[in-house]
Amino acid sequence: MILDLASQARQASNLMASLPTERKNQALEAIAKALAREESQIISANLADIKNAQADQISPVLIKRLKFDGVKLQSVIDGIRSLIQLPDPVGKVLDATELDSGLNLSKVSCPIGVLGIVFESRPDALVQISTLALKSANAVLLKGGSEAAGTNRVLADIINRAALEAGIPVGWMGLLESREEVSAMLALDEFIDLIIPRGSNAFVKYIMDNTRIPVLGHADGICHVYLDDPCDPEMAIRVAVDSKCQYPAVCNAMETLLIHRSVAVDLLPRLAEAFGANHVELRGDEVCQAMIDCNPATNEDWATEYNDLVLSIRVVDSLDEAIRHINTYGSGHTDAIVTRSEDHAGQFMSLVDSANVFWNCSTRFADGFRYGLGAEVGISTNKIHARGPVGLEGLVIYKWRLAGEGHIVADYASGKKSFIHRKTS
Amino acid sequence: MILDLASQARQASNLMASLPTERKNQALEAIAKALAREESQIISANLADIKNAQADQISPVLIKRLKFDGVKLQSVIDGIRSLIQLPDPVGKVLDATELDSGLNLSKVSCPIGVLGIVFESRPDALVQISTLALKSANAVLLKGGSEAAGTNRVLADIINRAALEAGIPVGWMGLLESREEVSAMLALDEFIDLIIPRGSNAFVKYIMDNTRIPVLGHADGICHVYLDDPCDPEMAIRVAVDSKCQYPAVCNAMETLLIHRSVAVDLLPRLAEAFGANHVELRGDEVCQAMIDCNPATNEDWATEYNDLVLSIRVVDSLDEAIRHINTYGSGHTDAIVTRSEDHAGQFMSLVDSANVFWNCSTRFADGFRYGLGAEVGISTNKIHARGPVGLEGLVIYKWRLAGEGHIVADYASGKKSFIHRKTS
Repeated sequence: MILDLASQARQASNLMASLPTERKNQALEAIAKALAREESQIISANLADIKNAQADQISPVLIKRLKFDGVKLQSVIDGIRSLIQLPDPVGKVLDATELDSGLNLSKVSCPIGVLGIVFESRPDALVQISTLALKSANAVLLKGGSEAAGTNRVLADIINRAALEAGIPVGWMGLLESREEVSAMLALDEFIDLIIPRGSNAFVKYIMDNTRIPVLGHADGICHVYLDDPCDPEMAIRVAVDSKCQYPAVCNAMETLLIHRSVAVDLLPRLAEAFGANHVELRGDEVCQAMIDCNPATNEDWATEYNDLVLSIRVVDSLDEAIRHINTYGSGHTDAIVTRSEDHAGQFMSLVDSANVFWNCSTRFADGFRYGLGAEVGISTNKIHARGPVGLEGLVIYKWRLAGEGHIVADYASGKKSFIHRKTS
Repeated sequence: MILDLASQARQASNLMASLPTERKNQALEAIAKALAREESQIISANLADIKNAQADQISPVLIKRLKFDGVKLQSVIDGIRSLIQLPDPVGKVLDATELDSGLNLSKVSCPIGVLGIVFESRPDALVQISTLALKSANAVLLKGGSEAAGTNRVLADIINRAALEAGIPVGWMGLLESREEVSAMLALDEFIDLIIPRGSNAFVKYIMDNTRIPVLGHADGICHVYLDDPCDPEMAIRVAVDSKCQYPAVCNAMETLLIHRSVAVDLLPRLAEAFGANHVELRGDEVCQAMIDCNPATNEDWATEYNDLVLSIRVVDSLDEAIRHINTYGSGHTDAIVTRSEDHAGQFMSLVDSANVFWNCSTRFADGFRYGLGAEVGISTNKIHARGPVGLEGLVIYKWRLAGEGHIVADYASGKKSFIHRKTS
C-alpha cells in the first residue's frame, strides 16, 4: 500500500518537474474553489472527528487544534490565493557561465522530488503543505494526526481530485493513515527525497535516527536575549519583555536572559518589575539572586525550553561569556543582543551559531511571514540546505544544464581548446 | 580521544566564523610555504608508507594512488595558491529586506561548523580538504586510508602548525587514525554538522545508515547518452565516444547508450566501428543484437557502473522511453541527449532527474574545474543542499541577521505598525 503510494509519487514527480507555472496556479485555484464548494462536507467530517476525540477524552487543547470550521477554511483558502501570487520557485537561473564558445552552463532551480511530511493534529497543515508542494512541483506523501483522520481524508480527497482535473499527474499526493505506514516510509529512500517532520523534538529525533533519508528538522527553541554593556535600558526592557511575553508558547520566545554584570545593578530590578507585571516566574543564578527576588536556576534551566511564563536569568562578565553560554546551551534557533556597540553586535552576530541572530529587536521576529518569505514551510535548525524560517525555496534544489554543439572533453585534455569561464548571469 | 578532538573542533569552529579573509589567506600561504619547506620529510614518510604497503602486498593501483612525490606536492601547493585567489565564501549577503523603517534583515553566508571527512588512500586529499575547510572557516576532522597513515600524520602536523602560527584557533583540524574512531565519530551529532565520505558506494551507504549527521554523499555514476531522432550522426558518434572512452574509470563516464530506433539502423554500425577501434566491449538489448555484433545485455547491465571499457546499449522507441529508462536505472549523476530538436532537449533536461543534464556535449564535462568553480569538494548526488560538482559554496550555509532600533512584535500584532518588506539587495 505505502509502497504503491510511494512508487506512484515518484512517477508523478518525474513528470511534475516540467509543469508550466500557469498549470500549477490553475490547479491551486481549482483547489481553493473546491474547498469552498465542499465546506459543509469538510465541516461535518471535522465535527465527527471532534465527537470521537471528546468520547476518547482527548484534551481540550488538542481538540481546539483539531477544530476546522468556516473561519479556518477561509484562512487556508486565503493562503492558497497568496501562494498563487508568489513567483514560481522552479526554473530560476541561479548562475550561468559560458565555459567556451557555444558551451553554456546554467544552474537552474528544480523540485526536490518526493517529500514525506508528518504533521500533528491541525488539519489546516494538510492544506498548507500539499499546496506548497504543488507550487514547487514536488510530489508529497502526508501523514496527519490520527484524531483528524476523517477531516484529513475529506480534505485530501478534495485537493487531489481538483488537482488531477487541472492536469497534475496521478499519484502526486498520497495520504498515509497509520503509524506503521510512517515507519515503512522511513525505509523508502529510493522513493522519498526529503522528510519534513512537524512535531515534538523527541519525534523529530526519532525520525532522524530511523531513516537514511535527509530530514528537514526543527529542534527546541531555547532562545536568548543578552543585555550588553552599554545598552539603552528602556530598549533592553522593551525587547526582553516582548521576547518573553508577547507569545510565550512558541519556539521563538526567549527562555534565558543574559545580562552584563555592570548593567545588572541598575537593570535587573526594573526587569523584575516588568516581568512581575506580566506574571513571569524568574529563576536566577547566584549573582542574580543577590540582586532581585527570584527562584534559583540550575544548569538544567539553561537547557530547558519552558514555552511558558518562566524565565531563567544569568549574569555574565563579558560579551564572550554570553556568546559561550549561548553556543553551549542554546538550540541554534534565535538569539538577540541589545547593545549600543556596533562592534559588539557584529561579534555577537558572527559568533553566535544560530539560524537567527538579532541586534536590538525581539526574538519573536523570527518567522517566515514577518521575514516576508510569503509562505513558511517551517523553521529549520539544520546546518545544511535551509536554515531558519524556510519558504518555498527550501522545497527546491538545482540541477546543472549544459548545452553544447558537439563539444567533447578530449579537445580540452589535449590542449586543442581551452575554457573561458565567462560569467553570463 | 575522538571526543576530545571533536569537542576541540567545535570550540575552534565557534571562533572561526569571524576570521577575517586576510587571516585565512595568510594561513593558507603559510601552509603552502611550510609544505614546500618540509618536502624531504613528507617524501620520506611517504616512501616508508609505500615500503610497508609493498610488504603487505597491496595492489599496484593502490600504491600508485598512495604515492606522494615532488610532483604531487607541487600540485597541491599550486592548488592552495589558487584557493587563496578565490573569493571568500563566508559573509556574502545573499538577500536583504527592509522589514520596516530601521528594521533590516539580511541572509548572510556562514560556515557550516565542523566537518567530518573520510577519504581514501590519496594523501593529496588531506591537503585539499583541510585547506578548503580553512578557506570556508570550518573546523575539520579527517580520516584517511590506513596505508597512508605515516604520510597523513606528517602532512596534518605541518598544516596544523602553520595554521596555528598564522592565528587559526587551536583544534580546528583533527586527524583520526583508526576505523573505530570513524564509527565513534558517526555518533557525535552534537559536535559534527556534516559528514563527507569519499569512497565506494557501499562505504557511503554504510555511513548514511549509521549516523544521524547529514551526509554529503556521492552514489554511483551510471551515466547515459541518448541519441535522439533527429540528431547529427557525426556529433552523436563524437559525443558518445568521448563520454565512454576519454577516461572510462571515472564517475562521469557513460555506462549506457540509448538510441532512438529510427536512427539506430544508420548509426549503430558506425558506433560499433568507433567503439571497436577504442576496444570497448558492447552489450546490447535484443534489437541492438539484431543490428550489430555484440554481447547480450541483461537488466543487471542497466544498473551497473562498469568504470571500464564496457558499454551497454538499448534501442528505444521514444524520447519518453529514454527518459523513463534513465530515471529508472540511472544514478542521478550525469545524462546527455544528442538531438537537433530544442524542444526534445528542453524536455530531456527538465524531466531527467539528475544533477547534470547535458545537450549535445560529453558527460565528461561534469566536473568542478571544468564548470569553473575553482575548487571541487566532490560531486554530490544528494537532492538537498548541494548537487553535482560542489565548490566552496557547498561548505557554507547562511544565517539570518536582523538589526533593529528596539523593535518589538507587539507593535505589529496590535496593528500599531505594519511591515513594508522592501527588497534592498
